Amino acid sequence: MSRVAYVNGRYVPHNKAQVSIDDRGHVFADGVYEVTLVVGGRMIDLEGHVARLERSLRELDMPQPMSSRALIHIMNQTIKRNRVKDGMVYLQVNRGTAPRNHVYDNDDLQPSVVCTAKSVPLPSDADAVDGVKVISQPDIRWGRVDIKTVSLLPNALAKTAAAKEGAYEAFLVDDDGYVTECSASNAWIVDKDGRVVTRPLSNEILPGITRDRVIKLAEENGIEVVERPFTLAEAKSAREAFLTSTTSFVKPVTQIDDVTIGNGHPGTVTRTLLGAYLNFIREIRQPAT
Amino acid sequence: MSRVAYVNGRYVPHNKAQVSIDDRGHVFADGVYEVTLVVGGRMIDLEGHVARLERSLRELDMPQPMSSRALIHIMNQTIKRNRVKDGMVYLQVNRGTAPRNHVYDNDDLQPSVVCTAKSVPLPSDADAVDGVKVISQPDIRWGRVDIKTVSLLPNALAKTAAAKEGAYEAFLVDDDGYVTECSASNAWIVDKDGRVVTRPLSNEILPGITRDRVIKLAEENGIEVVERPFTLAEAKSAREAFLTSTTSFVKPVTQIDDVTIGNGHPGTVTRTLLGAYLNFIREIRQPAT
Repeated sequence: MSRVAYVNGRYVPHNKAQVSIDDRGHVFADGVYEVTLVVGGRMIDLEGHVARLERSLRELDMPQPMSSRALIHIMNQTIKRNRVKDGMVYLQVNRGTAPRNHVYDNDDLQPSVVCTAKSVPLPSDADAVDGVKVISQPDIRWGRVDIKTVSLLPNALAKTAAAKEGAYEAFLVDDDGYVTECSASNAWIVDKDGRVVTRPLSNEILPGITRDRVIKLAEENGIEVVERPFTLAEAKSAREAFLTSTTSFVKPVTQIDDVTIGNGHPGTVTRTLLGAYLNFIREIRQPAT
Repeated sequence: MSRVAYVNGRYVPHNKAQVSIDDRGHVFADGVYEVTLVVGGRMIDLEGHVARLERSLRELDMPQPMSSRALIHIMNQTIKRNRVKDGMVYLQVNRGTAPRNHVYDNDDLQPSVVCTAKSVPLPSDADAVDGVKVISQPDIRWGRVDIKTVSLLPNALAKTAAAKEGAYEAFLVDDDGYVTECSASNAWIVDKDGRVVTRPLSNEILPGITRDRVIKLAEENGIEVVERPFTLAEAKSAREAFLTSTTSFVKPVTQIDDVTIGNGHPGTVTRTLLGAYLNFIREIRQPAT
């Protein structure tokens, strides 16, 4: 079956789906997006994704292209038309199409909406997930990375630099030596007392939906969460490290640059949280009767 | 006559010109561009624009989509097909189209090339150019604005904030109170000794082609140029202020925030430089016989 994409009111073959060269998403990175996990055909933590999208639009003075309810309908339709059971749905909203001019006037613009979906297999259980290497990279992104925009060039460069060194992700490090987050995920460590540590929300990190979920799951599992910045040096000497994102779930980090974390295998706290997360989404796939 | 755009090998009606939703320019702002002034059908300072484009591609590890000579051919064709005498030509090169993934592999990608052109009237002479207001805005852009990428969201936000206050541009101010540049132009002041002052090249400003040209023209006109950072406060008390860009030429700034610059009219040095710039392009339009 060939994939289908939603583009501005129409469902079209994905490989023929296009936007105008004057779409402000194309010429100014003037767009926002959400990637939502799909399990058993249902969207996970949808409320969080929708709330974050609404906030992104608001922070950029971008009008809602339609009600959030209508956007959710499009996401569900795109999931169904692509027959996605387990996978992800991608929604992008740009400010609209107009002759190229930095200055926008929302009154003259109709926001453009693109939605795609694809199947991705879920891991069977926490033990099936291997640890990954990350590298450190300077955080050179703009000052509002709390808004989920398509202004992702530095993220793409950092993640590609990681891939070239055989790593899965990059820990982005600010001018003071503190880890902000990763190029496409939030960063965490486990301290010597078994507490999980992650940077507090600010304009310097994306408010991850999975980050939020993992904080709740940690508390439910009696694991203390401390929201404070941590340095790269602290991460390298941490008992455990991991990252979280919609598509990575809870991913154990077993190497940072040339330093092995813990004993080089996913740690107990990380595996507990990954297991809890997989249970959480499994219950949605197969609701208790 | 309807406008024509070049898109990946074809000339198509501009209003139907499209790129894939999976073009990395659309989803990751993974593209670079140049805007070149056209006068009398000829491109101004083409060598500078081409060299900067080549540098942008190199800095982003993006391969040339084709030789620069072939790109120049496309730009010239686009100018001709749109019958542009005076105006501008826009060239955008993105890394290419592939299933959405932060990590790129240049071996799997064919860069995409888009070129458009439009007519814009030139000012008749320096006295016909009025002074403009600018506002100050914090510079929250990423750390490599020396690369001319389409990652322009903060620029668009700043220039729109300016427009909403009846201003033409925004002076972007760094954490230490120094002006970096404007959202789409370089920033200059004239000090009490009649020297023009502009920030030196670094990763914090775009190496403007017009900036470069104006430095040469200043020297030819016996005006001393000092490349050093200046503060917003210094700009507000400067004798004159102006900005330069491919499409703004030399634009007198007569108000910064609520402060009138000089006597509120374009100053002598600014008018001299604008006149010199207009002479420079006029000679290209009507070459001396």
